[in-house]
Amino acid sequence: MAAMASLHLKTSPHSISKLPKPYSPAAAAAVALPIRRLRGASRSATRISASLIDPDGGRLVELFVPEWEKGSKLKAANELPRITLSEIDLQWVHVLSEGWASPLKGFMREAEFLQTLHFNAIRLDNGSLVNMSVPIVLAIDDAQKTRVGSSASVALVDERDDVVAVLSNIEIYKHNKEERIARTWGTTAPGLPYVDEAITHAGNWLVGGDLEVINPVKYEDGLDRFRLSPAQLRDEFERRNADAVFAFQLRNPVHNGHALLMTDTRRRLLEMGYKNPVLLLHPLGGYTKADDVPLSWRMKQHEKVLEDGVLDPETTVVSIFPSPMHYAGPTEVQWHAKARINAGANFYIVGRDPAGMGHPLEKRDLYDADHGKKVLSMAPGLERLNILPFKVAAYDKTQNKMAFFDPTRAQDFVFISGTKMRTLAKNKESPPDGFMCPGGWKVLVDYYDSLSLSDNGRVPEPIPA
Amino acid sequence: MAAMASLHLKTSPHSISKLPKPYSPAAAAAVALPIRRLRGASRSATRISASLIDPDGGRLVELFVPEWEKGSKLKAANELPRITLSEIDLQWVHVLSEGWASPLKGFMREAEFLQTLHFNAIRLDNGSLVNMSVPIVLAIDDAQKTRVGSSASVALVDERDDVVAVLSNIEIYKHNKEERIARTWGTTAPGLPYVDEAITHAGNWLVGGDLEVINPVKYEDGLDRFRLSPAQLRDEFERRNADAVFAFQLRNPVHNGHALLMTDTRRRLLEMGYKNPVLLLHPLGGYTKADDVPLSWRMKQHEKVLEDGVLDPETTVVSIFPSPMHYAGPTEVQWHAKARINAGANFYIVGRDPAGMGHPLEKRDLYDADHGKKVLSMAPGLERLNILPFKVAAYDKTQNKMAFFDPTRAQDFVFISGTKMRTLAKNKESPPDGFMCPGGWKVLVDYYDSLSLSDNGRVPEPIPA
Repeated sequence: MAAMASLHLKTSPHSISKLPKPYSPAAAAAVALPIRRLRGASRSATRISASLIDPDGGRLVELFVPEWEKGSKLKAANELPRITLSEIDLQWVHVLSEGWASPLKGFMREAEFLQTLHFNAIRLDNGSLVNMSVPIVLAIDDAQKTRVGSSASVALVDERDDVVAVLSNIEIYKHNKEERIARTWGTTAPGLPYVDEAITHAGNWLVGGDLEVINPVKYEDGLDRFRLSPAQLRDEFERRNADAVFAFQLRNPVHNGHALLMTDTRRRLLEMGYKNPVLLLHPLGGYTKADDVPLSWRMKQHEKVLEDGVLDPETTVVSIFPSPMHYAGPTEVQWHAKARINAGANFYIVGRDPAGMGHPLEKRDLYDADHGKKVLSMAPGLERLNILPFKVAAYDKTQNKMAFFDPTRAQDFVFISGTKMRTLAKNKESPPDGFMCPGGWKVLVDYYDSLSLSDNGRVPEPIPA
Repeated sequence: MAAMASLHLKTSPHSISKLPKPYSPAAAAAVALPIRRLRGASRSATRISASLIDPDGGRLVELFVPEWEKGSKLKAANELPRITLSEIDLQWVHVLSEGWASPLKGFMREAEFLQTLHFNAIRLDNGSLVNMSVPIVLAIDDAQKTRVGSSASVALVDERDDVVAVLSNIEIYKHNKEERIARTWGTTAPGLPYVDEAITHAGNWLVGGDLEVINPVKYEDGLDRFRLSPAQLRDEFERRNADAVFAFQLRNPVHNGHALLMTDTRRRLLEMGYKNPVLLLHPLGGYTKADDVPLSWRMKQHEKVLEDGVLDPETTVVSIFPSPMHYAGPTEVQWHAKARINAGANFYIVGRDPAGMGHPLEKRDLYDADHGKKVLSMAPGLERLNILPFKVAAYDKTQNKMAFFDPTRAQDFVFISGTKMRTLAKNKESPPDGFMCPGGWKVLVDYYDSLSLSDNGRVPEPIPA
């Protein structure tokens, strides 16, 4: 721990790139890691940590073609039928390749797809169950299916037609979209963001198989260095001698209520006897719906929060979770938790209405706000994970700061919802002092400013709170 | 076994009641069983068989108030808020009370409901999972909820306002119908029979709790003696020294293809080394959709098939499964299988598209015909059950009988679908010789005849095949 005390936040408030810097030297070092690791003779599932929670299935899956084999693999791939991946498909290739979905070794075949839809869990050869609640599937249309013909393998290419990966021992099966949507979201109402984006217009077939990634997915958005793989995160947690890792999934700006919760969680873990609990602050980086704050702005905001000292960089690892967002509530929160087990987290903080949203047609939340944590606490395959329910934080007017809500003096508290927060930022109004650090708030105001400016130069009317 | 050789079908072809007689003396004796059993001092979960498969949770749940306690229980119940049960609610009370859903001890509370919807399985206190795929819930409306108020117990009454049961330690929670339907059926299309019948117009709340049945559900339709409980069936299988029990769920008339399959299954089990495999021929007796053949006619038809010697009464137990039908395909087939474990069956025959139906809106089957058996074979909590996939039987024109389909001489076979069968019977046409025993076929023709006659005396036009 003495050695770790020297690890401090290295970002400058006015970095040239205007993009966040790594929050620790370890994260910075991670940029080089994939190359070192790719040089290893074997990239097949190998990593078991003595101290961290085991990945699902016992071994962390990594699906990268070793460097020495890339040439021949690429040559062979160029002879195969090609399937062009969408942006979301590529995000799933990323997710699968790094083992977030361990023990999955590629896009789901039908047996895995059916178990996911019906049981939110997949049975391993040894009879045990691992959690898997969200289908990770690759859709193809009739024409693509015809082109694949009887080939046992296909090449997966990006939109520039560059080969990204090979899918082998493939199985093609029907894509019953209605059933997939109903069982995943618990509704078939039109207007579900992921459905509109990735399912409605997708093909009527799914192709599953074993994935081998030749060219790891990079986004070239200045944030790739924050996209630590589960293996890299495990390395980082071990380097920090973490004896507990608690994950906080988020897709929104961090306010002081979140920070209070994370700080308090660490305190509780210390009280439980852990010596060095480390926080994995893990913003989701894949597809999000149009009215969510984009990743790049969220990362700027998180940077300011870290700079502000609201969270302790010594015991915090900030990294990007590459998964796309389903907004599938109790079904999706299991995926969010399970993926973090694979990254070494044994504690998971779950809030009110995780991965939820408003019903697309009705004036209500799509999911019961308590179902997420209830379902998570009962989910098959997540028995090893400690679920930490979110305590309710609100703005305490007597202290001018975010505090845990005390029902005996309810009148002292103000609840500031995400909608309220966005409305204030859009209208360039300020939240109460102590709600969010000023630097973080300014990022949000700047974001909505940039939206107004890009909107044909017209600044929209303030919206009612 | 020598003693069992004397057990023969005792029905007469022209019984006065025109209702089927018990197919074995044991079944006849079962009429008296509930009374004897109800006199027992304790009705709490007690039955474990040394030879038969254990019920889910290890003990068969029975939820009957002991005879000596009925008076006081009824008096107390009369002081409680009352909930009037629908016909389908009563069928579920029946199902629960006899332990078909063991280890469930009453209508589901929210934790059980959520696990059913999301995982098709419920976790026991010891950490193991039992299968539970179909919600067994009791809906109440706002007015009923208000009447219940803060009472911890409610009286469940039939439509004559007679107390049937008490539900204790109740929990009232939201009935999100859309989510329930989507996750159970994999569609929310209007026109699902069970949904129209039991959900759409049901209340917006569910009430779960511990069930105690004061007056066991009887139907007074002349068929109650065929409604053997799991405990009674277990007694019967033990009396017959069954060392394997294979269950055949059906809601349609039995044709010779079914009979061939059941006979062949017994042959295979004998080959596997079992000495006395017994068939549980188990027609579903609860709610079915309007165009299914009603239970009373199906029972007549089954009687004729037994009389005809197509199935061996010595090794066949015919009984009625009291569950209502969901038509929820792969989700429901798990319930059908799980309930039979509780009745002592360790083998389950599963056919093409079990519990399936046409899509209510689209011109296709609602479920993939193979998903039922695939999902069943992978379902959590059903590991102990041996799944026997249905072989395809068709009419073999070269032999004039039903035979297992041989793809090398496909041209020799004719497939006669359920729709085709019903159309022939409605039009008073005959199926090919050897498709169904003539007595059984006549029952079907009589049934459709009775429909035509009751239809304002008008005989409808023959419908095209």
